[in-house]
Amino acid sequence: MEPLRFGLIGGAGNAFIGDVHRHGAQMDDLAILSAGCFSRDPEKNRDAARKWHVDESRVYADYIEMAEKESARQDGIDFVIIATPNNTHYPIAKYFLEHGIHVSCDKPVAVSVAEAEELQQIANQCSLHFGVSYTYVNYPMVHQMRAMIEGGEIGRVLTVMAEYPQDWVINSIDRGEPMQDAWRFNPAVGGKSAATGDIGTHVECLIHMGTGLSVERVLANLTRIPADMPLETNTQLLATLTGGVPGMLWASQVAIGYECSISLRVFGDKGALEWCHDNPSRLKYTRVNGPETYLTCARSFLEEGPRAMSRLPYGHPEGFFEAFGNYYRAFCREVLRAKKLTDAPALVHPTIEDGVRGLRFIEACLKSQEQGNIWISVQ
Amino acid sequence: MEPLRFGLIGGAGNAFIGDVHRHGAQMDDLAILSAGCFSRDPEKNRDAARKWHVDESRVYADYIEMAEKESARQDGIDFVIIATPNNTHYPIAKYFLEHGIHVSCDKPVAVSVAEAEELQQIANQCSLHFGVSYTYVNYPMVHQMRAMIEGGEIGRVLTVMAEYPQDWVINSIDRGEPMQDAWRFNPAVGGKSAATGDIGTHVECLIHMGTGLSVERVLANLTRIPADMPLETNTQLLATLTGGVPGMLWASQVAIGYECSISLRVFGDKGALEWCHDNPSRLKYTRVNGPETYLTCARSFLEEGPRAMSRLPYGHPEGFFEAFGNYYRAFCREVLRAKKLTDAPALVHPTIEDGVRGLRFIEACLKSQEQGNIWISVQ
Amino acid sequence: MEPLRFGLIGGAGNAFIGDVHRHGAQMDDLAILSAGCFSRDPEKNRDAARKWHVDESRVYADYIEMAEKESARQDGIDFVIIATPNNTHYPIAKYFLEHGIHVSCDKPVAVSVAEAEELQQIANQCSLHFGVSYTYVNYPMVHQMRAMIEGGEIGRVLTVMAEYPQDWVINSIDRGEPMQDAWRFNPAVGGKSAATGDIGTHVECLIHMGTGLSVERVLANLTRIPADMPLETNTQLLATLTGGVPGMLWASQVAIGYECSISLRVFGDKGALEWCHDNPSRLKYTRVNGPETYLTCARSFLEEGPRAMSRLPYGHPEGFFEAFGNYYRAFCREVLRAKKLTDAPALVHPTIEDGVRGLRFIEACLKSQEQGNIWISVQ
Amino acid sequence: MEPLRFGLIGGAGNAFIGDVHRHGAQMDDLAILSAGCFSRDPEKNRDAARKWHVDESRVYADYIEMAEKESARQDGIDFVIIATPNNTHYPIAKYFLEHGIHVSCDKPVAVSVAEAEELQQIANQCSLHFGVSYTYVNYPMVHQMRAMIEGGEIGRVLTVMAEYPQDWVINSIDRGEPMQDAWRFNPAVGGKSAATGDIGTHVECLIHMGTGLSVERVLANLTRIPADMPLETNTQLLATLTGGVPGMLWASQVAIGYECSISLRVFGDKGALEWCHDNPSRLKYTRVNGPETYLTCARSFLEEGPRAMSRLPYGHPEGFFEAFGNYYRAFCREVLRAKKLTDAPALVHPTIEDGVRGLRFIEACLKSQEQGNIWISVQ
Repeated sequence: MEPLRFGLIGGAGNAFIGDVHRHGAQMDDLAILSAGCFSRDPEKNRDAARKWHVDESRVYADYIEMAEKESARQDGIDFVIIATPNNTHYPIAKYFLEHGIHVSCDKPVAVSVAEAEELQQIANQCSLHFGVSYTYVNYPMVHQMRAMIEGGEIGRVLTVMAEYPQDWVINSIDRGEPMQDAWRFNPAVGGKSAATGDIGTHVECLIHMGTGLSVERVLANLTRIPADMPLETNTQLLATLTGGVPGMLWASQVAIGYECSISLRVFGDKGALEWCHDNPSRLKYTRVNGPETYLTCARSFLEEGPRAMSRLPYGHPEGFFEAFGNYYRAFCREVLRAKKLTDAPALVHPTIEDGVRGLRFIEACLKSQEQGNIWISVQ
Repeated sequence: MEPLRFGLIGGAGNAFIGDVHRHGAQMDDLAILSAGCFSRDPEKNRDAARKWHVDESRVYADYIEMAEKESARQDGIDFVIIATPNNTHYPIAKYFLEHGIHVSCDKPVAVSVAEAEELQQIANQCSLHFGVSYTYVNYPMVHQMRAMIEGGEIGRVLTVMAEYPQDWVINSIDRGEPMQDAWRFNPAVGGKSAATGDIGTHVECLIHMGTGLSVERVLANLTRIPADMPLETNTQLLATLTGGVPGMLWASQVAIGYECSISLRVFGDKGALEWCHDNPSRLKYTRVNGPETYLTCARSFLEEGPRAMSRLPYGHPEGFFEAFGNYYRAFCREVLRAKKLTDAPALVHPTIEDGVRGLRFIEACLKSQEQGNIWISVQ
Repeated sequence: MEPLRFGLIGGAGNAFIGDVHRHGAQMDDLAILSAGCFSRDPEKNRDAARKWHVDESRVYADYIEMAEKESARQDGIDFVIIATPNNTHYPIAKYFLEHGIHVSCDKPVAVSVAEAEELQQIANQCSLHFGVSYTYVNYPMVHQMRAMIEGGEIGRVLTVMAEYPQDWVINSIDRGEPMQDAWRFNPAVGGKSAATGDIGTHVECLIHMGTGLSVERVLANLTRIPADMPLETNTQLLATLTGGVPGMLWASQVAIGYECSISLRVFGDKGALEWCHDNPSRLKYTRVNGPETYLTCARSFLEEGPRAMSRLPYGHPEGFFEAFGNYYRAFCREVLRAKKLTDAPALVHPTIEDGVRGLRFIEACLKSQEQGNIWISVQ
Repeated sequence: MEPLRFGLIGGAGNAFIGDVHRHGAQMDDLAILSAGCFSRDPEKNRDAARKWHVDESRVYADYIEMAEKESARQDGIDFVIIATPNNTHYPIAKYFLEHGIHVSCDKPVAVSVAEAEELQQIANQCSLHFGVSYTYVNYPMVHQMRAMIEGGEIGRVLTVMAEYPQDWVINSIDRGEPMQDAWRFNPAVGGKSAATGDIGTHVECLIHMGTGLSVERVLANLTRIPADMPLETNTQLLATLTGGVPGMLWASQVAIGYECSISLRVFGDKGALEWCHDNPSRLKYTRVNGPETYLTCARSFLEEGPRAMSRLPYGHPEGFFEAFGNYYRAFCREVLRAKKLTDAPALVHPTIEDGVRGLRFIEACLKSQEQGNIWISVQ
């Protein structure tokens, strides 16, 4: 079978995430980078194209030209990957959808619920697939966690604790260097939230996809640390999940000693599960009155689906690139199904539905903070 | 020098904490168990006395007789240890103070702020020492944490995360056995709070003594898990500490996979510190832009005070008994100072001041919950 | 710049290592799979070609045809990757070298020292580059370890402890399934050694590249576990390294509880370093009289070379695929240098020199065992 | 029941081990320190007596006077604890045995096999109990390991890996301070071996008591690091255990980054077990084809005997003092049985039999080294 063709918006220069998307999308030979608009800077755009062996004729100056020309070609791209700052997600995604092209977009998928909902509506109307690349939920052990919860291995969920501490903002300040990704703190570009939108939303998605429960309401305390930051860098909140399950969530960009340590702990009445990105191939599992146990990737004792997600025999670490690969394996499966090129079953991965829910979560947090730390429904 | 003499109220039978107090108080040969009222059950009382080699003539049927007779003896006890259920702390402590005897009492020191404040007042008026045996703050690495924070090693504190997950309640329910320490869930005996009073208060004390900051207000969500529990078993709260520092605190008795895993993480702008009871001889320390480092007990690179707290050369684990020993070393020092038997400097340890603050914390949490999860000052 | 072109021998079907080579070689867009002989089975050969998008005209029935045709083409492959069972490495490598094609070969590079030395000689004579894909030495933290030792951070090396425990053989036996990679226990195919040749040689290479010291003599105890295994599955040995440094090495295929847990500990008189594949992005470093410290990938406190090996910002795990990528980045650099296409400096990676040393190590171990566990020089 | 009475030889001043013995022997109220000869220095002797509340009349200038006077008293000591340098163990132990007093002695129990065997013979002839205080084997999880092996939980033992790395010698050298315990490197006082006798023998005992297997022969490489040390500080050896099981053992006093990290790994064909003193309350257990599991002290899933060894509910760390307490609980049980004061069953703990085996191990290692690293039977 011919591989799918995809285009990439953004990703040139130091933006490492562009290359991660490209690798992920190509990892299983299901798709190949065929077109792009990698940078608004013509030289960077050209350099990226050369480095990635994209034919010059399919390197575009802007996304509008790209959507128009690619949708007009016989061999035009099947999907586009959007890896640009947050405020551009909405117009770009909309334009490609309107030109009949499937979309994979970085999170947060937009800068408002309204935008996100509109994208969802358009994708539905056009019967196009819209994936959102929340990374962490694509590790096999997160799927194993979900499978075990659904299989009743921990009984009824009692409480959920989730966090994403990282240290890059405080480290950058200390080094006195200009901050990488400074646009994240420019509300006009990154949106009205920093810690919540950039990493809190990863946690919300992890809770949802790791447990099957949704964050139904939040009571959030958003703090700017240091005090002169333009947006919050530290988000601490109480949550109520589906069925009234209480929980807590913490996201911080000023937590020295933590790199990208997103984690999820789920406590039930028959057992508990715990996953942390620091060691993503391990899943702590404890049965009630039993000893701590650590499940590891690709082992015969895993559920079949999560086991099959590993590309390598057990003991061979897979990491961030491969998590993206897992996302794109599932995303491409959906595109192939849409194009009637496969009848293999769908694979779970984050989509525009998760993207919309993520924006609702962000807005509820902001509202809870504005109104003096009160409960706000996520809706 | 002759050792101090002490009496013990409670501690017979299966109540392991009595023996922990006794060992702790005798560990450094500063004091010797000389009298007691170990149980209301005469046989258990006698058995404990025999096991612990306490002279029959100084084993009492009730604390009233004990306080009266011991205070009348030339060789009467210098201090009493109270290791009974919460609701009896107040009358017993009061009676001994009124008979001129120093007091060491289990936490929570009373079942209301009013009681605790009265005890504090009496102790002050009588110039008697009143220690409260919060255990965890007596590990050397908690003192090291405090010393480093005071020495500026982590700069200005930005946020604090603390928790005490344990699993004994949910494990007991699963085993279908009668719950050990069932009195903790009888409000008439244990007080109006379970998770908050029994373990949340440990966390509050750890925050205070580990960082020097106080919990100034709380916004708490107390949940009964399972729903038919008479008191909360799960406490999740947002906090504001001295100087406006935001934080979170979690205490749970239904967290499968955790034994007595109280922990404290303190994040500053120049570094971070983290201590967990699972491995109490280690302290994680990370400087801004530096690597993770683990300080261990009794090493030459520690501050002098915390280093001297270890009884053994490095590499030889000390645990819960020795933490109690550290508390009693400091407590006895204070009694000796009060009796002018030493002019050695005082050693930091939890006292009635911490006991009062603990009750204020509990009552603020209960009030926050009653009023619908709003901010309540701890005062 | 045009990417290099490479061919692959082996790798079809379940042989995961073929795909690892392919991904590694393509990871940094320096080379592209252009030809191959992926299996002796025509159908598997064709299937692999299709999956990997290799033009049918460059898929060959055997390596001889492939070497001849590719070397005759204008656009023939620049290098070949050999991922076949051990006994075929020598003839295949030799044939490609003789046709002027650079070689990257799996370890062990041959089944005897004589074969390996001949390959080395041919490569030298032809001025062709010959890489050997020992994986583990290509993780950034192994390079960091070497850089720190060379920089004097741990002083004079006192002793070295290294091991590679894994459990797949005993697990396979327990499952009662036919053993994957059964050829490893067929001396006619895998060579005269199993545990030593398959994984002991990884440890030897890790010692050499991680410390700069060589294993100069061994005193080995090779055991067949279970006793009816045709070759040893457990190798335990005393070693003397350069300068008389004593050490120990263990390699086992029957160590339940370990997946691919190769590790190296190096003790000096001013510090110690420790790396383990279970958590390959961490390097334990302890200065004399100092605390344990954990260095992590991509951080500003690393040496420049090892820091630059990471493709992602810190906190984003890279694993086995990326270690292969690192190997091929260095290998391709060497091919580009040979072709005068770059003047960038060479990058350290395992080559035929390491391959020869590996065979000498294996043969010394076998000889030590045959002669009753006596010291044998590795030469 | 009246507690047993015991005397202590040695232990004054900085010798921390004296206090550890005293605490251990008194921990369960089975015995009380009643006499002693704590130092050859009269002032130190007196100071220790005062600190430990021993009656002046039972503090002796030398062990001869002590043995004679105590054995003549109606209320004389039931047993003596010997905590002096190695070369004095033999004469002291012999003298007390000859005066009818049970003995608990530090390891190694003597400086030669001949001495140790003579002590064993005398103890047997006199029907006196002779315990040897190897500490580490008295942790509950070592007993759990043994119970599981005997219960067949890991099947047939395939190989054993054991080590004791510590760093105090190299750290002392680096600090340039006079070495604590310098007598350990004076052959006239400490015996002909340092690393092997001081810590290697702990490992040998741990293997024996943890697995039930004996070290039957050794092939040892003993090295002096730094080269000018008078005795070996690093011992690396191959071993054959009962039934031909191969193993390795490492003991080092120059291993920076390790404090008292004695550990034992036992690999069977149905599972594996691993214990390390760094976290003595945990036992790693992996079934064949199963996940890693960590058993912890005092839990309901443990074997009954090991579970009952903990004094505290699970989650409350017990350490080195309590391990000594466990030894003395078992030792006193034996003394009580000898005195017909109890008919409770004997408890496993190290005795003169282990002491003799330890000396045989040391001498075999020294002989293997002298004869050029050849196999020597331990007999």
